[in-house]
Order: sequence, then C-alpha cells, then structure tokens
Amino acid sequence: MQNFTLHTPTKIIFGKGQIAQLSNEIPKTAKILLVYGGGSIKHNGVLSQVYAALEGYTIDEFSGIEPNPAYETLIKAVDYIRQHEIDYLLAIGGGSVIDGTKFIAAAVNYPHDDLWEILITNGAYITSALPFSCVLTLPATGSETNNFSVISRRETGDKQSFSSPFVFPKIAILDPEVTYSLPVRQTANGVVDAFVHTLEQYLTYPVNAKVQDRYAEGLLMTLLEEGPKVLKEPENYAIRANIMWTATQALNGLLGAGVPQDWATHELGHQLTAFHGLDHAQTLAIILPHLLQEKREAKHDKLLQYAERVWDFTEGSEEERISKAIRATRQFFEDMGVKTHLSDYRLDGSSIPAMIKKLETQGLVALGEHQDITLDVSQRIYEASI
Amino acid sequence: MQNFTLHTPTKIIFGKGQIAQLSNEIPKTAKILLVYGGGSIKHNGVLSQVYAALEGYTIDEFSGIEPNPAYETLIKAVDYIRQHEIDYLLAIGGGSVIDGTKFIAAAVNYPHDDLWEILITNGAYITSALPFSCVLTLPATGSETNNFSVISRRETGDKQSFSSPFVFPKIAILDPEVTYSLPVRQTANGVVDAFVHTLEQYLTYPVNAKVQDRYAEGLLMTLLEEGPKVLKEPENYAIRANIMWTATQALNGLLGAGVPQDWATHELGHQLTAFHGLDHAQTLAIILPHLLQEKREAKHDKLLQYAERVWDFTEGSEEERISKAIRATRQFFEDMGVKTHLSDYRLDGSSIPAMIKKLETQGLVALGEHQDITLDVSQRIYEASI
Repeated sequence: MQNFTLHTPTKIIFGKGQIAQLSNEIPKTAKILLVYGGGSIKHNGVLSQVYAALEGYTIDEFSGIEPNPAYETLIKAVDYIRQHEIDYLLAIGGGSVIDGTKFIAAAVNYPHDDLWEILITNGAYITSALPFSCVLTLPATGSETNNFSVISRRETGDKQSFSSPFVFPKIAILDPEVTYSLPVRQTANGVVDAFVHTLEQYLTYPVNAKVQDRYAEGLLMTLLEEGPKVLKEPENYAIRANIMWTATQALNGLLGAGVPQDWATHELGHQLTAFHGLDHAQTLAIILPHLLQEKREAKHDKLLQYAERVWDFTEGSEEERISKAIRATRQFFEDMGVKTHLSDYRLDGSSIPAMIKKLETQGLVALGEHQDITLDVSQRIYEASI
Repeated sequence: MQNFTLHTPTKIIFGKGQIAQLSNEIPKTAKILLVYGGGSIKHNGVLSQVYAALEGYTIDEFSGIEPNPAYETLIKAVDYIRQHEIDYLLAIGGGSVIDGTKFIAAAVNYPHDDLWEILITNGAYITSALPFSCVLTLPATGSETNNFSVISRRETGDKQSFSSPFVFPKIAILDPEVTYSLPVRQTANGVVDAFVHTLEQYLTYPVNAKVQDRYAEGLLMTLLEEGPKVLKEPENYAIRANIMWTATQALNGLLGAGVPQDWATHELGHQLTAFHGLDHAQTLAIILPHLLQEKREAKHDKLLQYAERVWDFTEGSEEERISKAIRATRQFFEDMGVKTHLSDYRLDGSSIPAMIKKLETQGLVALGEHQDITLDVSQRIYEASI
C-alpha cells in the first residue's frame, strides 16, 4: 500500500425526506444563493422542498449551469455574487452543478484577475472559498463529497479540472427519491460513470491494498446488479438508494487512497466531450474497453482479479478470462443503453488528429498509472474506438 | 436502506514516516499536551518521532492512561489542563488512550461539575471540546477517526460510553511501522476487535444495503487473510498496513450507516471487563459465538450470507452452513490465540448473577438489533460462555 492522505469532511445526510434537514445545518444568518441548472428541479418538486426547508432564510437564485459547466456561465455567477450580499452557496443538481459551484465558491475570493488560472494551476493559488452545500439530484460523479471539479471553456474547447482543500461541500443531502424522475439516459449515464470511476482506481497494478480492492469490487458488483434493475424499476427506493450510495462512494477518495490510479480514460474522454459534446459517461463507455485492450499486458494481474472476483470468470486460460471480462464490461455499458463506439454517435474519427493535438497542448502526453500512454498510444485507442 | 447521517471529518495521514507530518497540521502556536499510556512509546521510538516532528512547539505530557481508561485517572488530566496553559491534545496510543483523550477534551470545558454525567447522558450536554489529534499505535478500536469513547470507573465497576460531534480527532496519523513491536497479544486482540466491530454492524437482518454488506464482507475477508499472517510476520509492512486500515474502517461509521446494528456482544463483554479485567477483545471472543448461536433464528438471513460470501460455505443445508460459520468464527479467534470460553480465563460463571444485576442497573435490559436480548437471554448467553 502506498502512503496517502484521506480527508472526507463533508457531512452526508442520506435518505427519504432529508432535504428538510437543511435548516438544521445551514447557519440561520446565511444569505444563500441557490445554484442550479436547467429547471428540472422546478418540475420534480426538489426546488419547492428546498424553499420549504429554508423558510426564513434570505435566498437568491442563479440558474442555467449546463452539463459540462461552462466557464463563461460561471464567471457571470461570480460577478453576480460580488455585486450582491451572498455568503453561502447551495448547489442543487448533479455533478455539473456541484462542480460549477465549487469553481464559483473558489473564484469569488480568488486573489488574481484571471479566473481560468484556477484550472491551469489545479487550484494552487486558492486560499479560501465561500462555504457551500449541495442537494444531489443525479448520482454519478461523486462531486457531492469530494473536492474535485471539471470545468469546460466553450471559447477554446478546453475541458480541465482543479481540486482544492477549500472546496469540499459542507453538507451533502442525498435523497434517492429525487432521482425517480431522472430521464433514463441520465440514470444510465450515472451508473456507467460510477462504474468507470471505480475502475480508474482499481484496474491498474496490485499493491496489496486488500481493503481498497474489496471495496472497489463491492461497488462494481453492486452496479452490475442494480444498474439493469433501475432501468426497469425507476421508482424502486432500494435500487435507487444503492445506486446513489455507490456513486458517492466511487469517488470520495476512499477507493483511490494508497493505490495507483489510471484516469487516462477520463482524459481521452474529456476531449470527446469538448470536441463533439458527447455526454461524459458516453465518452467513458467508448474509451474504456479499448484502453483496457491496449493496456491488457500492464494491467494483467488486476484484470485477472477483476475477471474472477467481479465477473466470476474462473474457467479458461488467464488471457481468455481477461478477454471475457473486457467484453462483458463493454456489454454492460451497452445493456445500460450507453453505446461504446464513436460510429454509434455518427462520428468517423476525423477529429482524432485535432484531439491528439489538444492533448499535446494540455501537456497530457504521458497518461495512465505508468505514464506510458503517450500520444501514439492515445491515438491507437481513439482509432480503435471508431 | 435506512436513513442515515455520516460524518467522518478526521483527516487521515497513513503510511511510513507520516508522524513527521504533524507539524504541517497542528497550529504552530498550539500548547500541546501529549496524552499516552504506560510508556511503550518511549521504548519503540514513537515518542521520539513525535518530539522530532513537533520541534519548536510548547509541549507538556500526561501519561498513565490505562487499558480501559479509568475515569479516576482522566479527571486528573482535566485538573492538570485547567491549571496549565494547554489548548491542544495529542493522543499517542491505541483506543484506550484516544478514548481517554476524547473524554478529557470534552470534560475540560464541560458546563456541569459532575463529569461522570458525560457518560450517563451520552454526551448530551457537551457544547465544546479542546481540539485534539492522535498518533495511532494499536489498530483495533477505530477510535482514531470516530467520535465514540468508552470509559471505565474503577470505584463502581462501571464501563460506559459516550459520543459527541465535538470529539472527532482533527488528524489521525496511521503509520503501520509503529505496530511492528506490539506484543502478540495486543496484535491478536486488535484483529479480533476489528472483526467483531464489523460483525456487530453486519450480522443483523437484511435491509438491502448492498454497499455496506460488501464493505463489511471485504473487511472480514481481509482480517481472515491477514490475521494469521501477522502472527508469523509481525514486521511485514503490507500485512500490518492492511490490518491497520481495516481496523480503522471497521468503526468509522461507514459500515453501520443505514443498517441495523447489534452491539449486544459489546454490552455483555463490557461487564466481563468491569468485573474481571479481561481484555476487551477477549470478552468479544467469549460472547460473540454464543450470542450468534442464541440468535441464529433472528439473524438467519445474514448468517447465511456471511457463511457463503465470507467463508465460502456453499454446501449442505442452510442450518449446516450457519453452524459451520459460527464454528469457524470461534476457531478463527482461537487461531489468533484469543480464547473463547470463560473457563479458559479461570472463570466459573459465579459472577453471572452480579453481571446481570449490573446490566439491569445500567438499563441494558433490551439489547441487540431487535431489542429482544432481555436479561434472561443475556443470562443464557453468559451461561453458555462458561
């Protein structure tokens, strides 16, 4: 096991009706800005629940945070906060809204003028942030209890991330019932997203970290069991609760503590979103199987463990079991309705040279747990994904 | 899954040489009281490492915290702190030292004169506590990242617990190397302790909490694999690291979030310690197998799952598999060198009436996840344990 630091200070309030607890947690004097997306929370009752919970508070709103939250939108929120008396943010939404809120919280007091610098420097100069909490409506990214954020800049086609010890949410409210009304596509994307988050921290090489391995396998098995079920029974509380809790656990720092991590699938996927607007989970479903195939030798031991423990593939040669596991992983994504080839999204691969160029510009020239996914290897993975 | 609140704010710094990080985490102006036990940290180099890490700080010491920390000792530390300029505590030790430090931290500013009230009221009137961190030397109780504390009062033979949101350690330093020199008995006790902590939160009844179940099973399997190994290879870093991380995970709130919990084994065990001075883990090893046997009907579904997933017992009738799992659990404790009958400790059961009386006095008359372990049932469990 490698040395690690693990900090998970966000207080999690999980279950039915828990939005009502907000008033026990947010200081009564807070001047709150509700930050949200396109308005679905107005139709599914979540916004009303929040207002009911926060009766008596001073509340303002900023809406319009997009999927893959846009820097151009977020800096408007920063301006708005600077011009109004606001000292607390409440994100209501999925990973995009929460990621956007993290950026806003850090940017409001940022000591330099160029706010994009936060992304370029991975948050190195952040010295404080507005306190904020979140009401999660879409289990997927784990953003609700971690301090990572991914922001897109439309103007330049960049999609980059930052982290900072100042941007942990104070409180995360996780009510599985608010996910009943999610569109099938978002539900399925969330399952794929959590699955790939887990694999990014698990499918590398063994360091005898038995707890982390068992935890990762437990989350993967839970998603394999509950993912297909939720498509058939979207209003089954137990299934929704298991998926919501799994997605949070998949990226709260626990799985990755003390083990090597990959994340190349994410880096390659980000370019697909930046260039073609694909959903984040779609890009992961496209890249991952081809990346595993490309790196199956370096990942041999963990792929074999994955095949045996998660998929129960114990027959055949080691190589056969690994091939079966990679195929089964791809099939799981397809079964969830998330397609796994560029051509499924009417893309022919003609943007690959430009995406490789962008990786180079962003310095992403040596990815993966061994830093051996060079631009050549990335190109092969993209080409195999067509 | 049941509703839950989970808060794990302690920052964990895990690995070789991490004691050196203390100075990055504790405010430079802190006036620190080192709180520790019988002096083993002087011989194994831990105290020197702490002093080296805290060069330049104002440091004082309070030693002599016993296993099953004594109220009578702890109130002396409270007096000492009130008479000296101390504003930060650093516990160096295992669960007893950390539990004792939690009590001290809460008691220093306690608003009432009677400090034992903290135990009787489960910390209800605590409104603040001195900040404190810990350097863990004995993986077992999980106290290093939770807000529970168990205190014994020698004068009355009471052993009681409290919890409070104010007594989470700020930082927990977990360096597996400092556990190399632990006596075999303490190492084995720690493994048994972590194993039973996990079972108290797992072996109840199913609520379809798949993540919690998988996590618990992962910890149990890790202890079954690493426990016997550590007895043979006490200076194997990987084994020590896996055990240390498992013990912390076993009682940080994560396993028990959203699931029913038992804890009757602990309550019955506490009396054995109070009456006869047995090690905490010894009492758990004595009580648990008989409690499982007594409650095997109510725990049937989870016992079966435990037999299949943790022990891989898939042959035979359900009752046979359950019997095998209970036997195997007892044998695991014996293999770790922790005996499982009162008679192994030269006790003949003559104190059972007095222990039942004490349970009654403390209101512990309806224990377990169904509150159906009445005094009669407790008596049967004690008698079966002879």
